[in-house]
Amino acid sequence: MVVVMTADATASDLASVVERVEAAGGEAFVSRGESRTVVGLVGDVTGFHDLNLRALPGVMEVVRVSTPYKLVSREHHDPSTVYVGTTRVPIGPGTFTLIAGPCAVETPEQTLAAAQMAAAAGATLLRGGAYKPRTSPYAFQGLGEAGLAILADVRAETGLPIVTEVVDPNDVDLVASYADMLQVGTRNAQNFSLLAAVGDTGKPVMLKRGMSSTIEEWLLAAEYVAQRGNLGIVLCERGIRTFETTTRNTLDISAVPVCQSLSHLPIVVDPSHSGGRRNLVVPLSRAAIAIGADGIIVDVHPHPDAAIVDGAHALEGGDLRDLASAVRQLPPMVGRRPALPTERRPAA
Amino acid sequence: MVVVMTADATASDLASVVERVEAAGGEAFVSRGESRTVVGLVGDVTGFHDLNLRALPGVMEVVRVSTPYKLVSREHHDPSTVYVGTTRVPIGPGTFTLIAGPCAVETPEQTLAAAQMAAAAGATLLRGGAYKPRTSPYAFQGLGEAGLAILADVRAETGLPIVTEVVDPNDVDLVASYADMLQVGTRNAQNFSLLAAVGDTGKPVMLKRGMSSTIEEWLLAAEYVAQRGNLGIVLCERGIRTFETTTRNTLDISAVPVCQSLSHLPIVVDPSHSGGRRNLVVPLSRAAIAIGADGIIVDVHPHPDAAIVDGAHALEGGDLRDLASAVRQLPPMVGRRPALPTERRPAA
Amino acid sequence: MVVVMTADATASDLASVVERVEAAGGEAFVSRGESRTVVGLVGDVTGFHDLNLRALPGVMEVVRVSTPYKLVSREHHDPSTVYVGTTRVPIGPGTFTLIAGPCAVETPEQTLAAAQMAAAAGATLLRGGAYKPRTSPYAFQGLGEAGLAILADVRAETGLPIVTEVVDPNDVDLVASYADMLQVGTRNAQNFSLLAAVGDTGKPVMLKRGMSSTIEEWLLAAEYVAQRGNLGIVLCERGIRTFETTTRNTLDISAVPVCQSLSHLPIVVDPSHSGGRRNLVVPLSRAAIAIGADGIIVDVHPHPDAAIVDGAHALEGGDLRDLASAVRQLPPMVGRRPALPTERRPAA
Amino acid sequence: MVVVMTADATASDLASVVERVEAAGGEAFVSRGESRTVVGLVGDVTGFHDLNLRALPGVMEVVRVSTPYKLVSREHHDPSTVYVGTTRVPIGPGTFTLIAGPCAVETPEQTLAAAQMAAAAGATLLRGGAYKPRTSPYAFQGLGEAGLAILADVRAETGLPIVTEVVDPNDVDLVASYADMLQVGTRNAQNFSLLAAVGDTGKPVMLKRGMSSTIEEWLLAAEYVAQRGNLGIVLCERGIRTFETTTRNTLDISAVPVCQSLSHLPIVVDPSHSGGRRNLVVPLSRAAIAIGADGIIVDVHPHPDAAIVDGAHALEGGDLRDLASAVRQLPPMVGRRPALPTERRPAA
Repeated sequence: MVVVMTADATASDLASVVERVEAAGGEAFVSRGESRTVVGLVGDVTGFHDLNLRALPGVMEVVRVSTPYKLVSREHHDPSTVYVGTTRVPIGPGTFTLIAGPCAVETPEQTLAAAQMAAAAGATLLRGGAYKPRTSPYAFQGLGEAGLAILADVRAETGLPIVTEVVDPNDVDLVASYADMLQVGTRNAQNFSLLAAVGDTGKPVMLKRGMSSTIEEWLLAAEYVAQRGNLGIVLCERGIRTFETTTRNTLDISAVPVCQSLSHLPIVVDPSHSGGRRNLVVPLSRAAIAIGADGIIVDVHPHPDAAIVDGAHALEGGDLRDLASAVRQLPPMVGRRPALPTERRPAA
Repeated sequence: MVVVMTADATASDLASVVERVEAAGGEAFVSRGESRTVVGLVGDVTGFHDLNLRALPGVMEVVRVSTPYKLVSREHHDPSTVYVGTTRVPIGPGTFTLIAGPCAVETPEQTLAAAQMAAAAGATLLRGGAYKPRTSPYAFQGLGEAGLAILADVRAETGLPIVTEVVDPNDVDLVASYADMLQVGTRNAQNFSLLAAVGDTGKPVMLKRGMSSTIEEWLLAAEYVAQRGNLGIVLCERGIRTFETTTRNTLDISAVPVCQSLSHLPIVVDPSHSGGRRNLVVPLSRAAIAIGADGIIVDVHPHPDAAIVDGAHALEGGDLRDLASAVRQLPPMVGRRPALPTERRPAA
Repeated sequence: MVVVMTADATASDLASVVERVEAAGGEAFVSRGESRTVVGLVGDVTGFHDLNLRALPGVMEVVRVSTPYKLVSREHHDPSTVYVGTTRVPIGPGTFTLIAGPCAVETPEQTLAAAQMAAAAGATLLRGGAYKPRTSPYAFQGLGEAGLAILADVRAETGLPIVTEVVDPNDVDLVASYADMLQVGTRNAQNFSLLAAVGDTGKPVMLKRGMSSTIEEWLLAAEYVAQRGNLGIVLCERGIRTFETTTRNTLDISAVPVCQSLSHLPIVVDPSHSGGRRNLVVPLSRAAIAIGADGIIVDVHPHPDAAIVDGAHALEGGDLRDLASAVRQLPPMVGRRPALPTERRPAA
Repeated sequence: MVVVMTADATASDLASVVERVEAAGGEAFVSRGESRTVVGLVGDVTGFHDLNLRALPGVMEVVRVSTPYKLVSREHHDPSTVYVGTTRVPIGPGTFTLIAGPCAVETPEQTLAAAQMAAAAGATLLRGGAYKPRTSPYAFQGLGEAGLAILADVRAETGLPIVTEVVDPNDVDLVASYADMLQVGTRNAQNFSLLAAVGDTGKPVMLKRGMSSTIEEWLLAAEYVAQRGNLGIVLCERGIRTFETTTRNTLDISAVPVCQSLSHLPIVVDPSHSGGRRNLVVPLSRAAIAIGADGIIVDVHPHPDAAIVDGAHALEGGDLRDLASAVRQLPPMVGRRPALPTERRPAA
């Protein structure tokens, strides 16, 4: 941390800053210039934050230098791979993982059909929501445990491990008893009780970016999960809120390389919910693969025009074939191979 | 709802739209023009939303016409007053309510001192946080139930009803057993489990706007509370996330008259957290009063430079006297009188 | 400026930074800590900017400490008053100036009627556009010089000095030959040729904030005008672009006190174009007065529903009377009196 | 256009709407529902815009249905190719164009070296700025005509046509006398005088998106150029302003397919200025190619750490080789071949 004093700060203002830092067990290095004095702080930065130095007289600015997250930071840590399910499907460097399935679980038939479409397109993980956080209380909220049971049946049938959302700390144990990976959605990106609860399960977690979270806030949310001893976290960029309205959200594709430089956690992209329109899903998927994402998570539906939730962007037919083709051809161009279950992988 | 067909939509495309609407029990009025056909829908709009009309061939756009919220809508409903505490302090039309207190409860002494400062400045409700949602897991998270007990003691001493935040559905009953009004913070603005839980308590709720919530999303969040039979909701504008960085958030002062035209719920302004700087609190408070807010909620602290949380904007001394003066002088200019407890109010 | 080195910067990395700064005539103060080294820079900050220190190996961050604008800065400069027209109508501390008139000049009759309405409501400056920057090339672009002539006639009739927009550097001399104050609109907020050209005229300038300009960028735009020797600049906050769509733009009311703390220039608020809806104009005007703006600029029109441009928010009738009443009653509450022409002001 | 009436609109309110539309030569189709009446408008939509229907009593909302731009619209128009320079380098469907060069022209040596680096990496067009719009008046503003002369010399030496920015309508003829393609920058995205002036030259125009322009506003800006009879327009996505600060701007990669669906104009991506950091340029370039952009425009510099402007993201060495490799390998995956000068292209 660096404390910048105002032009008219007095010697006693400066002394107060130094004193407070040293009282907290830190070191303060004073650098005097013609017009300004700057104090460099060394020690436990988080502790310094609570010192409230900005409120002291003569302090103009306090600039944080270290990153505020530790467990998920890229410093001193190579990129991680997260393994999902009993078959250990990897998400991480060197592989590209297609996660696909219906936005919402509606019926056993619809879910199975969607899972088979997903698998045929190259997916090795199945997504599907049984608990849906909806902006309006009048919209369909998901099937709940009945939906989880359907997902488990489809897993038994297809062998695809399940990624599914949880929205309430009270449901975490129940959802974890069915799911292979727990998803925390954009509206819960700073629901710290939920983050701690999914951390406690020890199951892999897919952490969507809050629609107005900065990358730093997102990594701090991941730190809440990691603090519970759970480093099986996959970040998911799904678009941020901006002034542009032709797309539902603005996919922040730059977040992929930025996160990869700041954190060791894998990162996937959701091209379905960011664009909100079917004709954007394949182009955005191609961009995500080319920029080096560790995977994508895509909505598919056997009958998009009958889908209860988000049918407007679910893939089927020709679009899905285009996606399958991109998922086959592009990852090798960026040094990645398909993420097969570890046990099925050919010996080196 | 209005469905706009593409220029090349066929008669059969149009028939499909009409059929689907009528199958759902609605009426469809077709209006043919030279270049476009438009279909007006009448009936249960929420149901229409799930019809997924946008996915039908030949449909260019679906425009919602009715507001999606009902219980909190201003249509057919005069502006409400919400009464807080056993002494029934009003928040609503005709009055102006000053809510003040420490950002976080730290000690009995600090809380009592802050409450007395608040009361001296004209506050008739006490704010104070025992559960603090913090961006970093390494920051102070509040005293929990010990903090609630301190607040209750200070209420007994000062007579000020308590407004305090709750962040986890599991804590709602505990917090409600101490508090007079439950606050839902900006990070939980779309935590629907929490909204339902506070709705169930029947206690008044202060619902802060999500930092990236549109006004419509905010009113839909209020609808989640209202659906549990609880209309004792007060909206709180606290700044939104924008590109401007000189202030912590951008106070959307226009939201006050906009909400008052769309909803019958009272609305207050938080000038402390939006600006994030002490010298902005009094000017923003004056703006809030002048534009017709039903109240403001302000951080005060006996020793801001020692505050554990958000000391950078807590008021004391001269600033607090300026606030007191604004709270005395400005409300009458917009037809409001101070919000005294109902029982202490002079007879008409 | 402060340069923060990475954790693994070498002694030679550090030496390069110091060398480059000293070569540019600056001083570099090195402060070594356990985990980081920080270099404080003293001297000509603008020059340092061009040193491209961020590109040197071992440099993690370069933090600017001084403000990048000089002539318009509040440092070493009391708040300014700008005088407009031959009658010297003031805009600045201690007074409150109502600027009103039609969005676009349409006819002599409409302009005169609007000016008379404005004057009756307390306006002492007349606004009106002859050159309109329109998002669509198919929309009405203004009357051009014919509109300026109408404004001049109405000034002769009413005595109100004229504020009018200029959009092309080539028109600046022509517009300046008619106008008392030149307005630069939001779309030209970083049209540096235009800024220099209006600066050269020596006429007072009203500089609207760019719809996505940070306050710092806005003050730097003002610096472009000031650099031509023209300090007669009035800032105008008119709303910024955000995700909220119920208002045309989001009025950043906090910008008023923020600018007053950073710059000596007066600042006014445009409540008409920010909200974009008639029923928001009076509430936003009250907020602007209460927060301490030096004035407001408001659209009025004798027949809003026949207005060619922006009729949706032009005031008339009851709304205008409400505005007049706010302009009479509120400024004294914040220590301001109406901004009469200097020559008509009663002797002290 | 569709006009939605309020629930309590009277028959006379409705009649006024119909009358006004018909008086303007349009047709109005009335559709009555139980709770609302909707009026569909057919005819000249732009004319309707000026009818100010929103201001009429009983009107709740006016929804535009047709696109407001015509000449640049994709309706009735296949995707265009724009040819640049005497050698007719194409930008458009089927090809991928690499435009590269220094951000600012500094010296003949630096410009030539950058051009040779660009050509070696596969560039067939040279970028370079002689007029730089800078946020601060104290920053380097470009060499002006001397810079243009350097660019012309380098073109003679390398055969690469020149793309260069113009910032003032008065400079347009001069710049056009040197340049093969005129660039309009983000700060001038709504400088309508400049847009008209570059349109008048008949030279190809590269139109950068305004940093807060919606896609619709951007296409309307292009319409200003097109209206002067100049359809040689290439759109350039260069990042938009959002709340995220780890990147200089947020590259809106979705804008590529969205623009391609709305407009026939080619679109390129600027990965240098959007990210603002060297390590993002190659990943963003890969994403741009994969999503189907018609080209990219990239900063290169022989000595980035000595660059006067934007050295922090200029490419050289290994990064430039990575870019060259992506430009060779990826376009064929999306059905594109390198954009060679037409005259050098092998016969079919």
